[in-house]
Amino acid sequence: MDYQEILTQIKLEILPLFKEGKVADYIPALKEIDPKQFAMSLQLFDGTSYNIGDVDTKFSIQSISKVFTFTMALDLYGENLYKNIGHEPSGNAFNSLVQLEYENGIPRNPFINAGAIVTTDLLVNKYKDKTFKKVLKFIRKVSDDQSIYYDKEIAKSELQYGYRNLALVNMMKSFDNIQNDATKVVYEYFKHCSISMNTRQLSRSILFLANHGIDPITNKQFITPSQAKRINSLMLTCGHYDASGDFAFHVGLPGKSGVGGGIVAVVPGVMSLCVWSPQLNKKGNSLIGTKALELFTTKTGLSIF
Amino acid sequence: MDYQEILTQIKLEILPLFKEGKVADYIPALKEIDPKQFAMSLQLFDGTSYNIGDVDTKFSIQSISKVFTFTMALDLYGENLYKNIGHEPSGNAFNSLVQLEYENGIPRNPFINAGAIVTTDLLVNKYKDKTFKKVLKFIRKVSDDQSIYYDKEIAKSELQYGYRNLALVNMMKSFDNIQNDATKVVYEYFKHCSISMNTRQLSRSILFLANHGIDPITNKQFITPSQAKRINSLMLTCGHYDASGDFAFHVGLPGKSGVGGGIVAVVPGVMSLCVWSPQLNKKGNSLIGTKALELFTTKTGLSIF
Amino acid sequence: MDYQEILTQIKLEILPLFKEGKVADYIPALKEIDPKQFAMSLQLFDGTSYNIGDVDTKFSIQSISKVFTFTMALDLYGENLYKNIGHEPSGNAFNSLVQLEYENGIPRNPFINAGAIVTTDLLVNKYKDKTFKKVLKFIRKVSDDQSIYYDKEIAKSELQYGYRNLALVNMMKSFDNIQNDATKVVYEYFKHCSISMNTRQLSRSILFLANHGIDPITNKQFITPSQAKRINSLMLTCGHYDASGDFAFHVGLPGKSGVGGGIVAVVPGVMSLCVWSPQLNKKGNSLIGTKALELFTTKTGLSIF
Amino acid sequence: MDYQEILTQIKLEILPLFKEGKVADYIPALKEIDPKQFAMSLQLFDGTSYNIGDVDTKFSIQSISKVFTFTMALDLYGENLYKNIGHEPSGNAFNSLVQLEYENGIPRNPFINAGAIVTTDLLVNKYKDKTFKKVLKFIRKVSDDQSIYYDKEIAKSELQYGYRNLALVNMMKSFDNIQNDATKVVYEYFKHCSISMNTRQLSRSILFLANHGIDPITNKQFITPSQAKRINSLMLTCGHYDASGDFAFHVGLPGKSGVGGGIVAVVPGVMSLCVWSPQLNKKGNSLIGTKALELFTTKTGLSIF
Repeated sequence: MDYQEILTQIKLEILPLFKEGKVADYIPALKEIDPKQFAMSLQLFDGTSYNIGDVDTKFSIQSISKVFTFTMALDLYGENLYKNIGHEPSGNAFNSLVQLEYENGIPRNPFINAGAIVTTDLLVNKYKDKTFKKVLKFIRKVSDDQSIYYDKEIAKSELQYGYRNLALVNMMKSFDNIQNDATKVVYEYFKHCSISMNTRQLSRSILFLANHGIDPITNKQFITPSQAKRINSLMLTCGHYDASGDFAFHVGLPGKSGVGGGIVAVVPGVMSLCVWSPQLNKKGNSLIGTKALELFTTKTGLSIF
Repeated sequence: MDYQEILTQIKLEILPLFKEGKVADYIPALKEIDPKQFAMSLQLFDGTSYNIGDVDTKFSIQSISKVFTFTMALDLYGENLYKNIGHEPSGNAFNSLVQLEYENGIPRNPFINAGAIVTTDLLVNKYKDKTFKKVLKFIRKVSDDQSIYYDKEIAKSELQYGYRNLALVNMMKSFDNIQNDATKVVYEYFKHCSISMNTRQLSRSILFLANHGIDPITNKQFITPSQAKRINSLMLTCGHYDASGDFAFHVGLPGKSGVGGGIVAVVPGVMSLCVWSPQLNKKGNSLIGTKALELFTTKTGLSIF
Repeated sequence: MDYQEILTQIKLEILPLFKEGKVADYIPALKEIDPKQFAMSLQLFDGTSYNIGDVDTKFSIQSISKVFTFTMALDLYGENLYKNIGHEPSGNAFNSLVQLEYENGIPRNPFINAGAIVTTDLLVNKYKDKTFKKVLKFIRKVSDDQSIYYDKEIAKSELQYGYRNLALVNMMKSFDNIQNDATKVVYEYFKHCSISMNTRQLSRSILFLANHGIDPITNKQFITPSQAKRINSLMLTCGHYDASGDFAFHVGLPGKSGVGGGIVAVVPGVMSLCVWSPQLNKKGNSLIGTKALELFTTKTGLSIF
Repeated sequence: MDYQEILTQIKLEILPLFKEGKVADYIPALKEIDPKQFAMSLQLFDGTSYNIGDVDTKFSIQSISKVFTFTMALDLYGENLYKNIGHEPSGNAFNSLVQLEYENGIPRNPFINAGAIVTTDLLVNKYKDKTFKKVLKFIRKVSDDQSIYYDKEIAKSELQYGYRNLALVNMMKSFDNIQNDATKVVYEYFKHCSISMNTRQLSRSILFLANHGIDPITNKQFITPSQAKRINSLMLTCGHYDASGDFAFHVGLPGKSGVGGGIVAVVPGVMSLCVWSPQLNKKGNSLIGTKALELFTTKTGLSIF
């Protein structure tokens, strides 16, 4: 298949959509982004990659970081993790407190905010003040790229306006599902969200999830095949908040979106992908990114179903 | 009517109930209280008062403070208050976040925690760092007692374990329904809750609500008749969280309870009352206090209905 | 007090409000009513009554019937009633199923639809096929008027469009809180709702609730003082669905509204009232009727608070 | 791979689990089933099948019928279907009314009861009195088996105790999301649920979903590849009610369960499967069936992830 040609076609077809959508505006730092950007990268097992658009522009990975921190926590805690976090679709918005109140502070899954905050708390239990360093190290390792860093301005800005997440963490602490200082845990979480990467780096970073936990380029094993399967299943059922069913339905690949406009996805056994475009649909997922991935699976016939 | 004789009968009849109920244990300072205490005070318009039990023992007024801060806020803001706080029964527990999420951060009424926190925020808007001083001054004024103060240990302890209230305040701040620093507002709120009073003082303090806003002993007017009517109606429909209907049903008087075990009530045109006993029922209201008030209205036939 | 003069003033003051509000349109029979009608009747203990407006026009009493059927059920079952129906404000709309699902099919109170349907089921348990006859007999007795009847067209029309109530009754039956045939019970309930009365008759019919259960004109005792107190407290906390707090706040009297545009209320120890105007506010209560009652308590100073 | 050997191992390993679980008991006809039954069938593209256990015993397919009726409706209505039914996980129990009330009578997905009832209503719109005949014909066609029929006793029994589903259908009708007679639609739905099949037949019946909509044995095309992909994605995200995430997580295959104890699943491009064992877990899915499928994917490495 001529992937480069397919990417070219996709770029042309998504152009008319730039009129819809809305850039995340809950913090000043994200609001100022040029909305009409687009990038898409495919990473194959043999090291080949295909790219189109602003593939060198770094953006805030935001909730895509949840995949990395959950991978680390799953590796540290195994099945014990499920006392603290469920693995069911929530049926609610990414920042809902309703479910937490009805279910005693146990988040439905690790890919909604509450779940990622619990994940962060579990990493802080283990790594204390070195948590962020460890997370960064892990992302650099799976990306095979030592240059990755975070945007301090965004992290600070997130905390400054992070009332909803502070509500979530305090709610969970009231149910004894957070062990460390609430504000500290949320700030750690915001640092993870503020990591800056481009689509090249992100597509490379999750290649191991497309290959049973083993990086097919370096042959390093990061997690077990069973763990990779579980993370992929979680991305499919819970990767796009209350639009996860829609993403599975239209795209048909395990994926994870972030409000920075990025979406990562894997075709198990074949490749990993990343698409980026900052305008979001009503559910908080990249509008053009979702469309681009749908075009990709339609054009290539690649889908897990 | 021989009120003293009625109080004596009530005390005898509530004795067997001390086996049920459970003292509030969410902070150490409250947990240590001797559970088998009981006091009841009636305050008449002519200055006469009737008392029984541990009427000089001070306890944490907790949510009874909501009546005082709401009275102050109603006087300051009038009808404008209703942009920030509703006046409907919530149908949920006193610290529920569910309703806040569905209703955009506007608490249902000023007598659930979220509502009292918004009330406090509105007082901080006006009085800044002098808020607590002003609240204390108001309570001393309506009680005609300059000795009233708060328990610093309890206030600190409340903050230390106050995760649920921190969740509430941050949730409302995310909806722009809190103007000041979230933690500061909650700490102010906890100071109000930590004010210590006995049943003599509390029954005296709300006498003005039984008399159209005018203290019948000193003839000072604190609020308008219309405001007094509204506060009383709120106490009737919302004064006991999700047991408000039950209280109206069995007692039939406007009242407000606190987890410290106190309950104040008014018989419009006749008297004000306070009862105290630290053991709580499942809804968080004084078990013996509620029963004592029910016995009182049954024996005297005093009820608004 | 010159009540007739007060009624005249009220009528003048409510005229400008006829532009707002919306007649109930869920069934054709109600939709066709002339929206600009208004009537108000006061019934005093000595038999005197004051009336203004269309006081001889009969309308569908709708949910006001819930007061009569609950009174009958309370008299039959006493405290046993509370296994089947609660007595707390629901915090939800009058026809919500959410609370029923969370609380195992036990309605919050007898004045929301689900509660009145359970009440009807309990009457059917006792009176079988004679239930409607018994209800009609009871209403005729308390109204001292043998001419009261129901509108068959409306009852049939209610059933034809009564999907939401059929959902409620089946939901409760799935929780074993309905003993008789679901559709039969709902049809009985609709017949109660379709009883036609005017404001003269309705104000007369609830006079006993203003006087401890005894009709002060005929001296007949219909229920005990304690039962009357409980019904009044329920009208105050739950009589206007999720606008009950608002009604207590602005009017300050126990009352019950119906979507036909009628509202009954009592001033304990003084009088009973009925107001009617078919345009409804967003909560389903008569817009002009509510306003008229508020004007009445403001002008007369009559309120329970 | 020696599939027969794998089935033999699975049967041995699931034996100790027969102590847990509970047969569906909401209707007498299901309650009487011998709980210790087990069957499993694999259907390959070349016509080979592997079977173990009670593979000739027919059972009530119950919610597995939702896959067939949704397939028919998708083929008839295409994207227009999504005005009436969503495609998101519900996050609630299979028979919840809460989501319906909050979302105006539009069910979250076609695999919860409300969704399948809407699907049935849409088929009745088209096929009128021939609906059941058409459904049966479709199932016989995809199963390549003319002997399939339904159990009239079970259908009647379902209707007799079907209060919850009658609540669902009336609720949706109150929101205009049901066009036909409510009881008639529910009875049609119950007939679909009461169709009797064994694991041989069921595994055969969904083979087309494992092969892009084409039966690989007869080469008949039943639906388009895109439709097959969408049905599979729905089975993955919504096929097991509020345990769908758990099934995806542990089994990793698109599947659909029924309270009769059956579960169908597909390995896209490889095979279709059916497992049956009547004891259910707390979420209403076959306890041993789920475990058997998990053992199957673990032993074979077959998974979509």
